[in-house]
Amino acid sequence: MNSMATQDRVLNDAQIAELAQQLRVDAVRAAAAAGSGHPTSSMSAAELTAVLLARHLHYDFDDPAAPGNDHLIFSKGHASPLLYAAYVAVGAVSEEELLTTYRRFGSRLEGHPTPKLPWVDVATGSLGQGLPIGVGVALSGKRLDDLPYRTWVLCGDSELTEGSVWEALEMAGTEGLDNLTALLDINRLGQRGPTRHGWDLDSYARRIRAFGWHTVEIDGHDVAAVDQAMTEAAATRGAPTAIIARTRKGRGVAEVENKEGFHGKPLPHPEEAIRELGGVRHLRVHVQPPEPARRPTPGGDPTAPLPRYRLGDQVATRDAFGEALAVLGTRREDVVALDGEVGDSTRAGVFGKAHPERYIECYIAEQQLVATAVGVGVCGRLPYASTFAAFLTRAHDFLRMAAISRSDLKVVGSHAGVSIGADGPSQMALEDLAMMRTLHGSTVLYPCDANQTARLVAGLAGHHGIGYLRTTRGSTPVIYPPDEEFPIGGSKVLRSAPDDQVTLIGAGVTLHEALAAADQLIADGTRARVIDLYSVKPVDTQTLREAAEITGRFVVAEDHHPEGGLSDAVLECFGNGHPMPLLTRLAVHTMPGSATPDQQMHAAGINADAISAAARKLVNTPLTTVSPR
Amino acid sequence: MNSMATQDRVLNDAQIAELAQQLRVDAVRAAAAAGSGHPTSSMSAAELTAVLLARHLHYDFDDPAAPGNDHLIFSKGHASPLLYAAYVAVGAVSEEELLTTYRRFGSRLEGHPTPKLPWVDVATGSLGQGLPIGVGVALSGKRLDDLPYRTWVLCGDSELTEGSVWEALEMAGTEGLDNLTALLDINRLGQRGPTRHGWDLDSYARRIRAFGWHTVEIDGHDVAAVDQAMTEAAATRGAPTAIIARTRKGRGVAEVENKEGFHGKPLPHPEEAIRELGGVRHLRVHVQPPEPARRPTPGGDPTAPLPRYRLGDQVATRDAFGEALAVLGTRREDVVALDGEVGDSTRAGVFGKAHPERYIECYIAEQQLVATAVGVGVCGRLPYASTFAAFLTRAHDFLRMAAISRSDLKVVGSHAGVSIGADGPSQMALEDLAMMRTLHGSTVLYPCDANQTARLVAGLAGHHGIGYLRTTRGSTPVIYPPDEEFPIGGSKVLRSAPDDQVTLIGAGVTLHEALAAADQLIADGTRARVIDLYSVKPVDTQTLREAAEITGRFVVAEDHHPEGGLSDAVLECFGNGHPMPLLTRLAVHTMPGSATPDQQMHAAGINADAISAAARKLVNTPLTTVSPR
Repeated sequence: MNSMATQDRVLNDAQIAELAQQLRVDAVRAAAAAGSGHPTSSMSAAELTAVLLARHLHYDFDDPAAPGNDHLIFSKGHASPLLYAAYVAVGAVSEEELLTTYRRFGSRLEGHPTPKLPWVDVATGSLGQGLPIGVGVALSGKRLDDLPYRTWVLCGDSELTEGSVWEALEMAGTEGLDNLTALLDINRLGQRGPTRHGWDLDSYARRIRAFGWHTVEIDGHDVAAVDQAMTEAAATRGAPTAIIARTRKGRGVAEVENKEGFHGKPLPHPEEAIRELGGVRHLRVHVQPPEPARRPTPGGDPTAPLPRYRLGDQVATRDAFGEALAVLGTRREDVVALDGEVGDSTRAGVFGKAHPERYIECYIAEQQLVATAVGVGVCGRLPYASTFAAFLTRAHDFLRMAAISRSDLKVVGSHAGVSIGADGPSQMALEDLAMMRTLHGSTVLYPCDANQTARLVAGLAGHHGIGYLRTTRGSTPVIYPPDEEFPIGGSKVLRSAPDDQVTLIGAGVTLHEALAAADQLIADGTRARVIDLYSVKPVDTQTLREAAEITGRFVVAEDHHPEGGLSDAVLECFGNGHPMPLLTRLAVHTMPGSATPDQQMHAAGINADAISAAARKLVNTPLTTVSPR
Repeated sequence: MNSMATQDRVLNDAQIAELAQQLRVDAVRAAAAAGSGHPTSSMSAAELTAVLLARHLHYDFDDPAAPGNDHLIFSKGHASPLLYAAYVAVGAVSEEELLTTYRRFGSRLEGHPTPKLPWVDVATGSLGQGLPIGVGVALSGKRLDDLPYRTWVLCGDSELTEGSVWEALEMAGTEGLDNLTALLDINRLGQRGPTRHGWDLDSYARRIRAFGWHTVEIDGHDVAAVDQAMTEAAATRGAPTAIIARTRKGRGVAEVENKEGFHGKPLPHPEEAIRELGGVRHLRVHVQPPEPARRPTPGGDPTAPLPRYRLGDQVATRDAFGEALAVLGTRREDVVALDGEVGDSTRAGVFGKAHPERYIECYIAEQQLVATAVGVGVCGRLPYASTFAAFLTRAHDFLRMAAISRSDLKVVGSHAGVSIGADGPSQMALEDLAMMRTLHGSTVLYPCDANQTARLVAGLAGHHGIGYLRTTRGSTPVIYPPDEEFPIGGSKVLRSAPDDQVTLIGAGVTLHEALAAADQLIADGTRARVIDLYSVKPVDTQTLREAAEITGRFVVAEDHHPEGGLSDAVLECFGNGHPMPLLTRLAVHTMPGSATPDQQMHAAGINADAISAAARKLVNTPLTTVSPR
C-alpha cells in the first residue's frame, strides 16, 4: 500500500479532520466502484468515526479476540463504506480490497457488515438491532466478566423509531451501563425523506434522558466537540451516555449534502466529489491498544449429573428444562440464562435460583431478550434465552439476524401448542416450529419426556448455532430411562415390526398420542410403527426413509399449524428423487379457543383417536404411484 | 337475572366503589368457576374500569358498530375476568354465562378477549399490543374520519417494557392524539415478581411525558381521583393522556393483595375472598350513549382502470404494486396505505402522492406499522401495510395476533429473496413465505409480472383476512396481457403438452427461470410443463395433482429458504392419501453474501441452469412407488 502514514502516532484535531475527509473519500470511492451502497449515510458520521479511532477506541486489530478490546457496532449497518474505510485507515483492510471487492460476489466486505470480518461482532442491516446487542455486550463486560472494555454503538436517527431501541435504552439505563456509549448520527434524513424529529436534538435527548442515560448534544462535524463528548462519556459513572450529534447527510459534497433523494446510491459524480473533499489521502491512524485483560476461564463441574426422572412419572418437559439448565450451569460456568419475565412459567427460574449471577432478567421485551443473549454470546458466553414460545415471534427479526451473525444461541420456548388449554390462542405457539426451522443453520428440538428434555438441553450446548427447544406446559409421562441418549438429528423408533402397515410420527405431546393410537390399532389388528421425531431439524432421514420403505404410509400428528412443522420436516426427506410415502397430516387447522388440554387436542384432531382413525383409513388406501401417461 | 339495578342512572362515588367491588367479586367468581384465570390482575384495575363505565365511556352495547362508540381495549388481556365482569355490569353478558362458560370449550368468554365478542375490537393477550392498535383506532377517528369517539386502553405495568409500547407512545405523542387515553395499572407485580420500576410512578411519567404525552399520577383505587384524571384526559387538547395509577394487585383480599405468587391463578379461598369483598352484588351500570355520528361512507370510482403493462416490457413488480395500489385507492376510498419509512423503495409512495390524506407514515417501526393497520381496520378501513419483506419478521407477533383478531389486513413485502443482489442477507426476505403461510387463514401471493401484480393487489381487496403480497426489487419481463385474470387459489400453466415429462414450478423471479429452463430442456428433447404458482396459499391443488398425474416429476424453485415456502406449499396437495410426485426442491440452502442478482440466483442454485439440470436428472429417475414388504 502506497502509505503516507503520519509519523506522529497521536493525531491533532486538524489531522483528525483530514482523517474524516479520507473516510468520506474512501466511502465515496467504494460505493462508486461497487455501483451501489450508502455513501451519504457514511459521510454524516465521518467525524464521529475518525475521533473514535484516533482518540477513544482501544482495539488491537491484529488480535480481534483480545478480551480488553473495545466493541464497535455499526447499528446503522448501511454505513458499511464508512466502517470499511475505517478498516483501511487502521491498516486492517487494504485499499485494494475495499475498491475491488466491496459488495462483490465472495467478498467479506458485504453491503452490510457481517462477522465474516474478524472485527465485526454481529451482522447489522436490520435497523434497531445494534444498540440492543451492544447492551448485551456491555452488560457482559460489566456484570459477568469485569472487563475494562467500552462498547460503542453508532446509530442512525431513522432507526430510533424502532421499539427495540427503547427496550435497549431502558435496559442499559436501569442497569447503569456506563461502559456503553451510543453515537447518534442525527443527519435529519431517512431513506425516503425527513425523519420525524429532524434536527430537534432535544427531542431525542429528552426521551433518552428519561430512560436514565446521560446525554450530550453536539455538532457532529466539530472534531473538538466530538472528542470532548467522548471524553465525557468515558468519565460518566453509573449511566450510559448518548452522544447526540447533529450532522449532515452527504456532508462535504454540495451536490448531495443535506438533500433528499440520495439515500443508498453512489454519488452522481464521484470524481468531482472526491476533488471537493480534497482528494484521495492515505492517512493511517494508530488505534490505542486495549488494556491488558484476561477473560475469566469459566470453570464448572463437568461431572454434575443431569436430573433423572423415573419411568412412568408425570413430569412437564418445562420442569425438566429448568432443572437440566441449572445443572448445565453447574457443569459449565459459561452458561448464562436469560428470562423474559416468565421464568416461573418457563422454569428458567430454577437456573436463576442456582446461579443468580448468571441469570439475566430482561423483563417482557423479547427483542432485548434475544439481543442480550446474542451480546453475551459475542463475549464468549453460552446463552439460553427463554420465554413462552408464542412470544418468540416478537423476536423473529433478531433471530433471523442472529443466524446471519452465526451466533451460538440457545432459545427455549414453553407453552407450545393447543395443549396449554384454557388460556386461548394468544398464548399458544402454533407457528414457532415453522419460524425456527426456516432460520438458516438452525436446530429444532421438541422433546416428549423429562429425561429426553434433560439430555437435549445439554446436547444443544455442544452444537454450534441457533438451537431451539420447544417445551410443554402440562405433564407428560416419562417414557425413556435417564441414561438414554438422544443425538441431535436422531429419532426413536418406539414400536416396530417387519410387517408394520403404517408409521405414526409425533413429537412432544403428540408422541404420547401416537403411542396410544398404536395400542388402539393393535387391538383391531393393525400394526403401527411409532417414531418419536424429537429432532425436527435436522431430521432423521434414514429412519424415515426406512419406515417409508416398510410401511409406505405415514400419519404425522403435530400440535402446530399445518404449515412449516413436523409434516413438512418429514416430507423434506423425500424430495430430490426419493419416493414419498402416502402421508396424512394431522395438525391444528382451526383457530382454537379456550378449553381443557384434552378438549383442545380432540378439537384439533391430533389426539390418539384422530391418529388411529387416520391410520385405519390410510391402511385401506391402495399404494399407487403416480402413473404418467 | 336477579337484578338489583340502581334506579338512579348516575352513580355517585360510593356507588362506583361498590361497582368496583362487584367487578372484583365477579372476577374472583369467574376464575374460581373456571379453575384458572387472572383474578388478581383484574382486581387492581377495578376502580379504573368502574369509573370509566359509570362516568366516561360512551358506548351502546346494543349497537357495537355505532360509529360514535368509544373504543375500550384491554391491552392487559389476561384481565379478561374484569372485562367480562364489566360486560355483566352493563347487562351485555349474563352472570350465568360468565360463571358457567368462562374459559370453557366453545365459549366466547375466552381466557384472553377476542372479537368473538362483539364489543371486543381486537384480540389481546400478547402484551404490548393493545396500545399500538389503540393508536391506529384513535388516529382513524381523528385523522381519517373525524368521529367523536375516545379510545381507552388499559395497560399493565409489566407490558410497558415492550418496545412496541414505545413505538405507540411515540406515534401517539407526535400525532397529538388527544382522543386517546392510556390507563396504566401500576400494580407493581408482574407474573414472576416485582416489575422493574415498582410503584415509582414518576419513572413512568418522566418517560411518557418525554414522548409528548400528558400524564396524571393517581391512586388508582381512589374513585374521585380516577374520575378527575379521566375528566382531565378528555379535556386535554393536542396530546394523548396517560393516567398512571398506583394500584395493588389482588386489591381487597388480604390473602393475596400485593403479594407475590398469585399471578394467573384463582384465589386460594374464593368464598372467603368474596365475603371479604362484601359479597355478591347485582349492580347494573348505565353507560352513556355515544354521540350521534355517521361514519363517512367511502366513495370512489370503481371504474378507475388498473395500470396496464405492455407484454415484453421490463417492470419491477414493486412498481406495479405502487401504481395499482394508487388506482385501488381511487376505486375505493376506504383503502389506506401504511408505510414503514421505505415508501420510495416499496413504491407505496405512489399511493401517498395520489392520496396523501390516506397515507400513514409509521416510520421505521414495523410493529406499529402493522398495529396501526389493524387499528384503522377496526374502524372500517381497508389497510395495506408495506415494508421490506425481511423486516415484516419484526411484526410477526402482531401478524399472529391479527389472525386471532380475524383482521382484514393486507401486507406487502418488497425486496424478497437473494435476487435483490448486493445489499446482502440482512435485507433479503428468505423466511417471509413460511411466516405468512403459517398464519391461520392467511392468503399468500407472489406475482412474477406487473400485470399479474396489479390484478392481485386489487384481488386481495375483495378477499377477507390477512393477505400477503411478495414483490421483487428488480425488473422482470411482462408475460401476461393486462386483462388476464388471476384468481386467488389459482395458478397458470404456461407450458403444457399431454406428454410432458416433468413439471417446473416457480413463482416471482423463479417463474422466469423456469420458463428459460423449459426452453433449455426443449432444445435437448425434454418436454417440461411450467406452472406459475402465484397463489402460494391457498394453492391450486387440482392443477398440481393433474401435473403430478401426467408428469410424475416436479422441480420446484423458490427464492426463499427451503423450509416453509413454495415446495412445502406444493407438497401440501399430496398429503392425506394423494400419491406424491418425485420432487426436487431448489431453494436458498446457503447463507448468501453480496453479489449481483444473477450471481445470487446462480449461487443459490435457483436459476434456469439449475432448474434444467435438476429436471434432466429427475426425468432419468425411475418412477417407483414405495414398496412395503
